Amino acid sequence: MRAMIIGAAGMLGAKLSTQIAQGAVPGITDLVLVDRIAPAPVPGLPCQCLAADLGAAGAAAELAALAPDLVFHLAAVVSGQAEAEFDTGYAVNLDASRALFEALRALETRPRVVFASSLAVYGPPFPDVVPEDFVLRPASSYGTQKAMVELLLADYSRKGFLRGTSLRLPTVSVRPGAPNAAASGFLSGILREPLAGQAANCPVPDVTRVWIASPDVTVAGLAHAAALDWDRIAPHPVLNLRGISVTVGEMLDALEQQAGPDARALVSRNPDPAIARIVQSWPEAFVTDTAAALDFPVNPDFPAILREYIDQYA
Amino acid sequence: MRAMIIGAAGMLGAKLSTQIAQGAVPGITDLVLVDRIAPAPVPGLPCQCLAADLGAAGAAAELAALAPDLVFHLAAVVSGQAEAEFDTGYAVNLDASRALFEALRALETRPRVVFASSLAVYGPPFPDVVPEDFVLRPASSYGTQKAMVELLLADYSRKGFLRGTSLRLPTVSVRPGAPNAAASGFLSGILREPLAGQAANCPVPDVTRVWIASPDVTVAGLAHAAALDWDRIAPHPVLNLRGISVTVGEMLDALEQQAGPDARALVSRNPDPAIARIVQSWPEAFVTDTAAALDFPVNPDFPAILREYIDQYA
Ligand SMILES: NC(=O)c1ccc[n+]([C@@H]2O[C@H](COP(=O)([O-])OP(=O)(O)OC[C@H]3O[C@@H](n4cnc5c(N)ncnc54)[C@H](O)[C@@H]3O)[C@@H](O)[C@H]2O)c1
Ligand SMILES: NC(=O)c1ccc[n+]([C@@H]2O[C@H](COP(=O)([O-])OP(=O)(O)OC[C@H]3O[C@@H](n4cnc5c(N)ncnc54)[C@H](O)[C@@H]3O)[C@@H](O)[C@H]2O)c1
Repeated sequence: MRAMIIGAAGMLGAKLSTQIAQGAVPGITDLVLVDRIAPAPVPGLPCQCLAADLGAAGAAAELAALAPDLVFHLAAVVSGQAEAEFDTGYAVNLDASRALFEALRALETRPRVVFASSLAVYGPPFPDVVPEDFVLRPASSYGTQKAMVELLLADYSRKGFLRGTSLRLPTVSVRPGAPNAAASGFLSGILREPLAGQAANCPVPDVTRVWIASPDVTVAGLAHAAALDWDRIAPHPVLNLRGISVTVGEMLDALEQQAGPDARALVSRNPDPAIARIVQSWPEAFVTDTAAALDFPVNPDFPAILREYIDQYA
Repeated sequence: MRAMIIGAAGMLGAKLSTQIAQGAVPGITDLVLVDRIAPAPVPGLPCQCLAADLGAAGAAAELAALAPDLVFHLAAVVSGQAEAEFDTGYAVNLDASRALFEALRALETRPRVVFASSLAVYGPPFPDVVPEDFVLRPASSYGTQKAMVELLLADYSRKGFLRGTSLRLPTVSVRPGAPNAAASGFLSGILREPLAGQAANCPVPDVTRVWIASPDVTVAGLAHAAALDWDRIAPHPVLNLRGISVTVGEMLDALEQQAGPDARALVSRNPDPAIARIVQSWPEAFVTDTAAALDFPVNPDFPAILREYIDQYA
């Protein structure tokens, strides 16, 4: 079975490529890794590494022609950019996704498709814990685009054109590497930068509560969805992945415990109302009974999330 | 102020044209009526009557060039056709709507837009009464397309490109004229045909409960949304219109009361599992507190709905 990862050079895509090459989805025998710039191959399975812009004319059809049995669709313009560049956001996050689903439909092989959606499909006002049947009411263009693609993928699946699952990922923290344009970027920066001896700014108050998961657990969730029997996934084409609900203050406490007060002292506290407004438009905790019943993985607590990062990068 | 009605030759569009020409939206001084085939003019206001396919290249821009201050977007492929013709459904219900919003955005005048959405954005399982913050989980391509357009219109409004409102109409009954391809068609046919001395079939059991409104009250709701101050509508860009929850048995009882047992006897009872499956995928009753607080109109009961039809058509 051939797996294709689109957005494979991204933070989650690179980790997912590695996990799958190491057997995270049973039965996968070769990998096609796709991104705007060709991703690096990963050890463990034969890899085709392709440079392609999914939004370019004909690109989706060329990728579909490689006849993947399983496609992870992770290519996206992140929230900050989608808000600043309205047309780019719709072109990449909506139109390119639709082109992909159309090209896969034309294969007539009903490939499995795992789409990385986001809690940004929700918008305020929220109950303290968001139930699984809560309304889609995005407060951003990014969230609107993710919600539209979830709906589209569910309809393509219902019609039997493919076998799609949308997974709403928690905010991923601690994100390794360089900062990105996401409004949630500081939720990694306030840990990653101090651990590297660098200053970081926390633009929101300590009490700000967020819903997060570590990179490894998030990627394990994507692989888990693909490995589950389709019969178990089909009734749940759109799922909230499991996460933990934690305050920014608790995150900084864990930093101090694991890296000392000097690390915490590197975090300045200059409020940024624009960032605060976006982050506060996201819910703080979710019911994830369906994902739990389907045995999706979860982080035990924030100190464990921080240790995952320190073990790999610090 | 110029109002444009797209889909003006349709059942609701024709009634809306008449109501607006008679002053239902204060301040409207001229009308542009648009449909695939040019609609007939209505008495009371100057009318431009245009034949246009909203989905054709350039059509949306040509309509926007007429600089409407208010647009009612009622053009759609109905549920049965959207399910049978997947690509046509997306082309008309999604792509043409998006082309319209893009063309109106380019005007930079932030026109008011009232979009006719549907309870088909919801899917089972349902609580007995669907709350206002219930998940969008359509069970049809038509419902998927309506949900996607609601999301798009809300995002265009949030960005300040236009001032849009999506109204989820109850199933409209008693629909005058010829049967249409909607799965809900029998909910009018079982009344309209017997009142004209003709046979009709009811494909679902008496206990089937549906959420309906009369044509006049539905159209009055569309006009009401356009007439409300934008400040009152803006926080509610997507609204469930008010309806009544009634069983098919109660509808037939009202028919017998108002037109006699001979009329009821014209209704045969041959089950149609395909129709039953679609209708049972729709919810039976809604919370509509927001619409009530905004003074949207509502039918008092089903006998009143039937009388509206008999007074006008029978
Ligand atoms: N990281 C998070 O906190 C988080 C949370 C929720 C959802 N997600 C979603 O998960 C997915 C992956 O997230 P990530 O953090 O790895 O993001 P990332 O930005 O690191 O990776 C996205 C990758 O997609 C690629 N890409 C973008 N447009 C493309 C195009 N047109 N053609 C080909 N490739 C294209 C980019 O080059 C990039 O390598 C995204 O869809 C994102 O929206 C992420
Ligand atoms: N009637 C109901 O029970 C009901 C319920 C919920 C929502 N709605 C929605 O209300 C709207 C009007 O409903 P109706 O019952 O009057 O439907 P209708 O079919 O009578 O009218 C729709 C009109 O749109 C026109 N149209 C379709 N595609 C077009 C295109 N590409 N360009 C120009 N015109 C086009 C058709 O020619 C038709 O005259 C539709 O959007 C429908 O989905 C109706």
